[in-house]
Parts: sequence; structure tokens; C-alpha cells
Amino acid sequence: MGVEKAFGFVLSTRRKELGLNQEELAFRCKLDRTFISLLERGKRQPSLDTIFKLAKELQMSPSELIKEVEDVFGN
Amino acid sequence: MGVEKAFGFVLSTRRKELGLNQEELAFRCKLDRTFISLLERGKRQPSLDTIFKLAKELQMSPSELIKEVEDVFGN
Repeated sequence: MGVEKAFGFVLSTRRKELGLNQEELAFRCKLDRTFISLLERGKRQPSLDTIFKLAKELQMSPSELIKEVEDVFGN
Repeated sequence: MGVEKAFGFVLSTRRKELGLNQEELAFRCKLDRTFISLLERGKRQPSLDTIFKLAKELQMSPSELIKEVEDVFGN
């Protein structure tokens, strides 16, 4: 699994845990909903800024978010 | 300080701690030296993949690298 897929899996899992749909998460992060969908499907990579924005809305620190990606990615 | 500047500061500090110049780090990560320079000056943002590649060569985990950026960025 590529790191993008691992990120997408963590993003979608955490979003659902918080009961957010893609539209709500996108709105909160001032991102486009289709971009959230592309990220979740591992078709796009987040930039550093996007990682920080998403982490905030997912109620975790950026490093916690990346740690989960590491664990899934098997780093 | 923007998150890009914080990342650049951490990248350059850690690289120097390891006694690497930009050329060596770029070669190891299969990145362009000018891109390393742009990252260190906060003029570009790393993608997720680049964060993972750089962390490996900087002998730290990606989440450790991001934690240092958080601390500098004052998250």
C-alpha cells in the first residue's frame, strides 16, 4: 500500500469516527469536497498545510495523524 | 511563521546535525538539490511522500519530523 493510500484510509476512518461527511470536513478545512474524496481514495497527496488543516478538524495533532499513517503504511 | 518556514527550519537544522549538505540529502532522497533549498527557505511545501523520504534520510520517523515542525510552528 502506498503512503497516499495509507493516508486516505486513516483520513476516512477518523472522519467517520467523528461522524463527519466529506462535505462537512471539506467546508471546515476550506477545501473542495472532491479533493477530500481524492485524498481518501489515495489519488492525491496532501501538502504539509493540508495535513495541518485536516489534523485540526480531525481533533488530533498533525504528528498523531502522521503516526497513524506510519502504522498503516508499515513504516 | 508559516508551516512551510517551520518545516524548512527543522529540515535544515536536522540536516546540519547529521553533517549532510543539500546535495547529499537530495541525492539520497532522489530529489533535486534546488528543491531541498526551496523547502529549507519555506518557498515550497513537501508532499506526504517527500516527508516520508526526508524523514528516513534524516534518521527519524515521519511523525517525529512533523512533531518538531509542530513545536517550531507553535501549533
